[in-house]
Amino acid sequence: MKSRIVFVTGGARSGKSAFAERYAARSGQLVTYLATAQAFDEEMKDRISRHRSERPADWPTREEPLDVPAALNAVSTPTVLLDCLSLWASNLMFAGHSDDGILAQTTQLLEAARARPGTTILVTNEVGFGIVPDNALARRYRDVLGWVNQRCAAASDEAYLVVSGLTLTLKGTPYDHF
Amino acid sequence: MKSRIVFVTGGARSGKSAFAERYAARSGQLVTYLATAQAFDEEMKDRISRHRSERPADWPTREEPLDVPAALNAVSTPTVLLDCLSLWASNLMFAGHSDDGILAQTTQLLEAARARPGTTILVTNEVGFGIVPDNALARRYRDVLGWVNQRCAAASDEAYLVVSGLTLTLKGTPYDHF
Amino acid sequence: MKSRIVFVTGGARSGKSAFAERYAARSGQLVTYLATAQAFDEEMKDRISRHRSERPADWPTREEPLDVPAALNAVSTPTVLLDCLSLWASNLMFAGHSDDGILAQTTQLLEAARARPGTTILVTNEVGFGIVPDNALARRYRDVLGWVNQRCAAASDEAYLVVSGLTLTLKGTPYDHF
Repeated sequence: MKSRIVFVTGGARSGKSAFAERYAARSGQLVTYLATAQAFDEEMKDRISRHRSERPADWPTREEPLDVPAALNAVSTPTVLLDCLSLWASNLMFAGHSDDGILAQTTQLLEAARARPGTTILVTNEVGFGIVPDNALARRYRDVLGWVNQRCAAASDEAYLVVSGLTLTLKGTPYDHF
Repeated sequence: MKSRIVFVTGGARSGKSAFAERYAARSGQLVTYLATAQAFDEEMKDRISRHRSERPADWPTREEPLDVPAALNAVSTPTVLLDCLSLWASNLMFAGHSDDGILAQTTQLLEAARARPGTTILVTNEVGFGIVPDNALARRYRDVLGWVNQRCAAASDEAYLVVSGLTLTLKGTPYDHF
Repeated sequence: MKSRIVFVTGGARSGKSAFAERYAARSGQLVTYLATAQAFDEEMKDRISRHRSERPADWPTREEPLDVPAALNAVSTPTVLLDCLSLWASNLMFAGHSDDGILAQTTQLLEAARARPGTTILVTNEVGFGIVPDNALARRYRDVLGWVNQRCAAASDEAYLVVSGLTLTLKGTPYDHF
């Protein structure tokens, strides 16, 4: 089976995760859901359990906030859905990784995805379409995530922007035409 | 006359209202302008009067901040332009409606639009492409509006994203081809 | 040589400058890089020197924070890359120009671009896809830049939206097809 990287981006509550899940489910096979979210507070717990309830119950779920390249190497289903790069980058930043360190990890993540004999779906967030944030940490995050997204999109075979639950094709075959 | 729902989204000052007005004006018939804005302060009054001065003077205008489904039922022109879902969702939130209540109202709005023998143009805002907001109310609004937008876009016959006054087609016939 | 205006927009760290540079470099001729950035602090100095290191070393660079129409008139290479409208609008605001004054300058900028026998590439930012900013100055900037962008996009021959380093065509020939 061929290696395939699918990049899915969009704003918050744009329906990007739901799109990625529909995309993954088309295969008719088991999909590993690789979650980067960490449940620090009630709001995050609510978001995580709501997301979980929307996925097929038989999909194996693995939670890995930091070492996503290793987690990708350990996946045994043909398709893996990584949700999401944006939380992963945030987790690495809060764990003290430098910008260069995060970009080096991104290279490793893409190498792991390319080495897999199947489809790796990478979900991420657009965070750079608003006014410049007041605080330096948010500006640093915006920069780092922008670079992470550019690298992953450049390495992808297909890329989609989700807006209000609908899809614009950035790269590859328009989704409607499948 | 067939029922038709047209969804128009974009950022602030993206030209989405102007696009919706040009779209509505193509019919050559009277268009009801259904405004959800409330003039609480001078800044808002300025925005409302500037918007009004840009519309054809003979378009009937109705202001309804909350009960938009009923307002849609009362429209008698073939085309109605609702500007905008984003202020409507905000009005409902500040009037104390729950998230589920707002989504139930959205279903009613879409049923009213579908029951009309003509075109209902729904204008809204993208607000989820920036850094996560600091305050919980803004995060809740971003979630609710995202869900409202996804439902309306899913129910629409045509959907457009307006960027710098130009249009990307999310669903239906590309606008340029009319 | 024909006058040509190319409009390039996108979020922060979307890869819009890099796209504009690749676009400009296709000509195989010298490109004037017209920078509107001012190095007020270390963060900005870093951004500017990083951007500079990514451009061909032999491109003439001119810095002009305010009188961009005059700077465009003085360009002698066939192609000029203006990076960016968003900082220019910000510079004008902080220099005390009114909204109407900034829009009048935008008209002059477009006249200067149209009068040039060559390609003028205008890079800008989308800043209106987030939650309404708390402070009035940021809201004013969002409005003004939105109007500046709409005018420049309307006057352009080609327009592109850059997302995660990939390109959606807003107007003109899709970039991939060149």
